[in-house]
Amino acid sequence: MASGGMSLVRRAAEAVRRTPRWQKRLVVFTVGVGTLTYACQDNRVLQICDGTGNKKKLVILGTGWAGASFLRNIDTSLYDVHVVSPRNYFTFTPLLPSVTCGTVEARSVVEPIRNIVRKRNGAFRFWEAECYKIDPTSKKIHCRSDVGTNIDGNGEFVVDYDYLVVSVGARPNTFNTPGVTENCHFLKEVEDAQKIRKSVLKCFERASLPNLSEEERKKNLHFVVIGGGPTGVEFAAELHDFVNEDLAKLYPDVKKYVNISVIEAGGHILTMFDKRISQFAEEKFKRDGIDLKTNFKVVKVSDKDITMSNPATGEVSVPYGMAVWSTGIGTRPIIMDFMKEVGQGSRRVLATDEWLRVQGCEDVYALGDCATIAQRKVMEDVAAIFRVADKDNSGTLTVEKIKSVLGDIYERYPQVKLYLKSNQMKGFHDLLKNSEGKESKELDIEEFKKALAQVDSQVKMLPATAQVASQQGTYLAECFNRIQTCEQYPEGPIRIRGEGRHRFKPFRYRHLGQFAPLGGEQTAAQLPGDWVHVGHSTQWLWYSVYASKQFSWRTRMLVVSDWGKRFIFGRDSSSL
Amino acid sequence: MASGGMSLVRRAAEAVRRTPRWQKRLVVFTVGVGTLTYACQDNRVLQICDGTGNKKKLVILGTGWAGASFLRNIDTSLYDVHVVSPRNYFTFTPLLPSVTCGTVEARSVVEPIRNIVRKRNGAFRFWEAECYKIDPTSKKIHCRSDVGTNIDGNGEFVVDYDYLVVSVGARPNTFNTPGVTENCHFLKEVEDAQKIRKSVLKCFERASLPNLSEEERKKNLHFVVIGGGPTGVEFAAELHDFVNEDLAKLYPDVKKYVNISVIEAGGHILTMFDKRISQFAEEKFKRDGIDLKTNFKVVKVSDKDITMSNPATGEVSVPYGMAVWSTGIGTRPIIMDFMKEVGQGSRRVLATDEWLRVQGCEDVYALGDCATIAQRKVMEDVAAIFRVADKDNSGTLTVEKIKSVLGDIYERYPQVKLYLKSNQMKGFHDLLKNSEGKESKELDIEEFKKALAQVDSQVKMLPATAQVASQQGTYLAECFNRIQTCEQYPEGPIRIRGEGRHRFKPFRYRHLGQFAPLGGEQTAAQLPGDWVHVGHSTQWLWYSVYASKQFSWRTRMLVVSDWGKRFIFGRDSSSL
Ligand SMILES: Cc1cc2nc3c(=O)[nH]c(=O)nc-3n(C[C@H](O)[C@H](O)[C@H](O)COP(=O)(O)OP(=O)(O)OC[C@H]3O[C@@H](n4cnc5c(N)ncnc54)[C@H](O)[C@@H]3O)c2cc1C
Ligand SMILES: Cc1cc2nc3c(=O)[nH]c(=O)nc-3n(C[C@H](O)[C@H](O)[C@H](O)COP(=O)(O)OP(=O)(O)OC[C@H]3O[C@@H](n4cnc5c(N)ncnc54)[C@H](O)[C@@H]3O)c2cc1C
Repeated sequence: MASGGMSLVRRAAEAVRRTPRWQKRLVVFTVGVGTLTYACQDNRVLQICDGTGNKKKLVILGTGWAGASFLRNIDTSLYDVHVVSPRNYFTFTPLLPSVTCGTVEARSVVEPIRNIVRKRNGAFRFWEAECYKIDPTSKKIHCRSDVGTNIDGNGEFVVDYDYLVVSVGARPNTFNTPGVTENCHFLKEVEDAQKIRKSVLKCFERASLPNLSEEERKKNLHFVVIGGGPTGVEFAAELHDFVNEDLAKLYPDVKKYVNISVIEAGGHILTMFDKRISQFAEEKFKRDGIDLKTNFKVVKVSDKDITMSNPATGEVSVPYGMAVWSTGIGTRPIIMDFMKEVGQGSRRVLATDEWLRVQGCEDVYALGDCATIAQRKVMEDVAAIFRVADKDNSGTLTVEKIKSVLGDIYERYPQVKLYLKSNQMKGFHDLLKNSEGKESKELDIEEFKKALAQVDSQVKMLPATAQVASQQGTYLAECFNRIQTCEQYPEGPIRIRGEGRHRFKPFRYRHLGQFAPLGGEQTAAQLPGDWVHVGHSTQWLWYSVYASKQFSWRTRMLVVSDWGKRFIFGRDSSSL
Repeated sequence: MASGGMSLVRRAAEAVRRTPRWQKRLVVFTVGVGTLTYACQDNRVLQICDGTGNKKKLVILGTGWAGASFLRNIDTSLYDVHVVSPRNYFTFTPLLPSVTCGTVEARSVVEPIRNIVRKRNGAFRFWEAECYKIDPTSKKIHCRSDVGTNIDGNGEFVVDYDYLVVSVGARPNTFNTPGVTENCHFLKEVEDAQKIRKSVLKCFERASLPNLSEEERKKNLHFVVIGGGPTGVEFAAELHDFVNEDLAKLYPDVKKYVNISVIEAGGHILTMFDKRISQFAEEKFKRDGIDLKTNFKVVKVSDKDITMSNPATGEVSVPYGMAVWSTGIGTRPIIMDFMKEVGQGSRRVLATDEWLRVQGCEDVYALGDCATIAQRKVMEDVAAIFRVADKDNSGTLTVEKIKSVLGDIYERYPQVKLYLKSNQMKGFHDLLKNSEGKESKELDIEEFKKALAQVDSQVKMLPATAQVASQQGTYLAECFNRIQTCEQYPEGPIRIRGEGRHRFKPFRYRHLGQFAPLGGEQTAAQLPGDWVHVGHSTQWLWYSVYASKQFSWRTRMLVVSDWGKRFIFGRDSSSL
């Protein structure tokens, strides 16, 4: 009987998990074809042959927001897709601060890449390795597995590509501050969050030991967050809740020694948000007893003290138990080397054009935190724009002539629209008005230049966020999927300095708003249209948005059940 | 509105979590009193003063099955309780094999000790440290925190005790086989299980890399379990399920290279179970393709090969990807040192009497895997027993005289009853029958000795299991709780070589049965009365017993929801 019941449940469960048989056959087929790939091996470093023959080989570096969203959208029947990443999972970074205190479990915020592979019928290959060199000349990447693999080899291999999608993200930026790498935690990867969680509990256990002076207990329970950006602030808020809602009850003897400090070099925290949010956050932190040190720059970290400086006080050192460094991101070494290769050595960040193509080489795309879109300036192209619009080569432009290319201009140079908006202008014709407010009927090149002189001030760098990265991933995959159609029927704007039209519309970012969780079930939200709200209701909005944004039903269920568990049982305090 | 809803949920949740106010007051009081403890400190090593004055100080080492069950049952209003353990949580070890493959999450099988502290109104102290020396002469223990704590100190401290309860468990036994510690995983702690899980996935990722020969792929996917006891067998079965139910789909290219071997020095696996179970397990493993190597003794492990020997084949070496060593337990160094101190230096395991008191010293108790009960032999006491029973000193015993002390004898020497049972005897009078089957009316000392000569053959060592440890913990706590009552009204058997009665009944183990999960939702069960069953229904029994045995509602809910998740989504394959 029981065994019959068992089978029923199992079968139901299996039905959910297992793929239909025809899909399985496809897997077998794919694997069969795929194993050809292994035919031509050399003992140490090998060049992968294209087992499938006629499909172009598309290699993706990284499985973060950009890489994973590209992967979810790319049509694998069109390309031979290979993925290289040192982590075999995608991380839902916005929930990492929650992982630091066990509000959400580490496993609930990751999705194994091979699950995605399986959902796509195994139609791409994944290798858990790090790419350490991109060679755009010979179209090869050099990779290294984190562990020596073959009996005599060192786990290195080379992969060639037809197209390369670089989405390796960024690394924490220490600004070369001495002692940071050795003594501070970062909050970038799941492992970082797990280490922080363990470390917080170790601090409490240490402070509870019998042989400490009061000063030593205080030191152990001084938690320092360096950086008042969204991540640092959210971590400080989470930690404050963790201490007050859970740890205070479990460590009643030492709770009075706890001190959380946030050190920020600028004058305010959360400066990327609306002033009202930044102010609310500062006030809330003050009420909560979080020690906010603005205008302090950390200059050195030792294993015992953090030294910071401020014009008024000079250098001061404070002892601490644990420190989290969260001051922004920097470029990964592999990208710096690559930038030199493609003639971008003097830049700070890898530049792509508006179609995410790396400037200075062919068939390499970069997206997410590892690159930035260098928006083409209107003033660089102004003569060409004039020429394109002046169809009859009369040497002057009329409003009519301009109108005929206006759509393309808006599309190619989004700063124009931004400029109009920020100057409360209704349309392009407002730009053409002279100082007396009278619209010119005809403009020569100099007048045209003058009219457009200021628009480039509105060129905006996209923020390094998950939203941007994931929209870029989706956008690029769509381009790849539609490459043949768009080759025939280009849908982009007119080529200003070339013939015909661009194949694709340039990437355009849609900002969907931003949250700043501030602890105590209060979240600040800034939605498009400068809608600002702070409070419990926004916390619920945050819960629902973050649940809905999950990569799969699995992680969605896990995250929601973690929240439920926390409500019922509180956070776990095992120093695991 | 939403904010109102929020508060409602929160309040409900808080109600579950928070303790009533009077309990909180008690905490404040206890803490107040407790902080006196810190009054007399010396900078490095300190001796804790008894802040509460008149209560006796009870120190417990370890928070495993024995320690935690003692803690749950001890009446903290009677003693000043202190706990020292290097882990601030209790581990539900029977589920550790499930953690190795992610069937259950690590956090679901642990319960923070401070949660127990809180439930008991904080009426005891916990220190996350390791005891490295017990000094029974001066009644002190020497402890070390795993991290140096105070600014100049080394994290060491000394605690004195009135009573000491030693429950530090055992350590894995390598039998000094070279290379085991360096190259094998153990499966003793939660961290071990987490490492194994990560390692299994790393092996799959490594085997999937492009630059490997077939031989290298096979090596990476050769999983070896050394030891065919319940833990080794369960791990092998779990791994087999993990590979076949989950990983085979995610790593279709390499699944054909997977090989699981179990190496066992004896002739069979699961020898502590009924023969039918052992045989069933061996057949199931054969069907599952698990390579069972019985009569093979591992003699060396290098980072590449495992060398084993067998009388027939001599030494053979096999390359492997990951190995788990699970061959039994050994005595911890701290216990070995302690044994020397108390004159047990020549023994292999720390011996206690039937009341769990360490032989050779005062006020120290030992229970669980770190000790064994040295059951008093009848033949050592036979003259004294005779004397006690022979109340009128006639020099002979009648059946009546014996009957008057029979209950005490059965209680003090459980082997007597076992002997009767195993020889199908109905009662003690059967023992007294002479070779012709006639019952003697009167026995002198020599006849009495002869009648009892064989009973000590039935002295049984208790197995090193969670069941024994936890029953011992409960038993000992009950003794401590009732010490005053039992001092006045002793309830143990007559003291054979002393006056009056023992205060307490000796510890008696109740065997509740044993499970051996064999994978594929099949579990073997051996319940008291030699009831043996294998199959799906036993798996359900296993689920319900393990759920009901959880330490708290929290872990119960977590474990059950982990099982549910696995049914629906399969196990997670992130190499986290
Ligand atoms: C704690 C935290 C909280 C955040 N919260 C938010 C938020 O609330 N909202 C928001 O919009 N953004 C948030 N962000 C920012 C957001 O996570 C990033 O902008 C986003 O992850 C960028 O995506 P990416 O794909 O470029 O890089 P990542 O997501 O960082 O992915 C990089 C990938 O490349 C892999 N990789 C690294 N090196 C190599 C190599 N050498 N070869 C191959 N692969 C490599 C990595 O393993 C990883 O898979 C947060 C970030 C952090 C750290
Ligand atoms: C993988 C696995 C599966 C098992 N399955 C079962 C099963 O299904 N059924 C069953 O009955 N039994 C099972 N057992 C056996 C059972 O776990 C042990 O018998 C039981 O844990 C013994 O309890 P204990 O309290 O003596 O030791 P442990 O539970 O090992 O606890 C020892 C405690 O002492 C602490 N400690 C260690 N050193 C020190 C020190 N120097 N100072 C202070 N504290 C210290 C440890 O941190 C730990 O808290 C299993 C064991 C393992 C490893």
